[in-house]
Amino acid sequence: MPTIKNTSNIVTTKLFKINKLDIEFDNKATREYEVISGTGNGAVMIIPVLGDNFLFIREYAAAINNYSLTFPKGKIDDEESILVAANRELQEEIGYKAQKIRQIFTLDLAPGYMDHKTHIILAEDLVPSKLDGDEPEDLEVIKYNINNLNNLLVEGNNIDSRALASLYIYSHIINDNKS
Amino acid sequence: MPTIKNTSNIVTTKLFKINKLDIEFDNKATREYEVISGTGNGAVMIIPVLGDNFLFIREYAAAINNYSLTFPKGKIDDEESILVAANRELQEEIGYKAQKIRQIFTLDLAPGYMDHKTHIILAEDLVPSKLDGDEPEDLEVIKYNINNLNNLLVEGNNIDSRALASLYIYSHIINDNKS
Repeated sequence: MPTIKNTSNIVTTKLFKINKLDIEFDNKATREYEVISGTGNGAVMIIPVLGDNFLFIREYAAAINNYSLTFPKGKIDDEESILVAANRELQEEIGYKAQKIRQIFTLDLAPGYMDHKTHIILAEDLVPSKLDGDEPEDLEVIKYNINNLNNLLVEGNNIDSRALASLYIYSHIINDNKS
Repeated sequence: MPTIKNTSNIVTTKLFKINKLDIEFDNKATREYEVISGTGNGAVMIIPVLGDNFLFIREYAAAINNYSLTFPKGKIDDEESILVAANRELQEEIGYKAQKIRQIFTLDLAPGYMDHKTHIILAEDLVPSKLDGDEPEDLEVIKYNINNLNNLLVEGNNIDSRALASLYIYSHIINDNKS
């Protein structure tokens, strides 16, 4: 297992921390890495299932200055549990509360250079319930039939990689439950 | 469409740039965002198919100080095309060259706060060919049967979300070609 010989902080902003790591491998090779940490408690991404549909959102994504298709998601507040955070985000972003909710995976975004964790939550038995969030504008809710996602991977959707990973995880969980 | 009213650079490191954006939405709501840009040309992730297997790698992931299961991947060098970069990384990381290679998607990692693009490349008709790369240690190549990926989503694999997204994209591309 490689050893971190030294860690130094390059910058800490409101949202991010960039550290420089000096790593020594078992074969004594050394490398310098820059890695990004979030400054919070991680994030949740929720797969909301309503009847035969997944409920996606279309949300402004600042880094690409365009709209992105994604699942409801958000940061976990201080002293908030993962499932409470997920059900809060659901109510804020799409106006539903899940009566059946469970964590199905924890994603590593790009673990080579980011330690960011996204907990993937499956939300079922949805009932209308709205909470006010901090969204700057109302989010468009977009339904895709669970059995026909062919139009998802088109240019212009700018779909969040975590939403695609979530769909892969969902299909495995569901198939495992069937078998 | 929201408008970026102002962009200011918070920090530029060797690998990353963090900018602050002041955004005005159509409803005149304003928000401040921090976003991360890569300083390079984007990255490639390659799905290598050899017979009935996907070839994954197990690579040290500095940000989580642990090994991560992922597909071969790397940065695109200056003045290098996407497919040339992909075939170079394949030879450096797993010792194969693809005779049939094509781009099947471009992933947005987390477009809310990162503009990082990863081009997903399908590599087939592999033949042995080794290039020396900048890897600090030899990478372990791990085969998974295309039709039996059940052991992939286990704790300890720390699988890169882009590899899961790639598997989702692969299954769609393959199904579309069959139908």
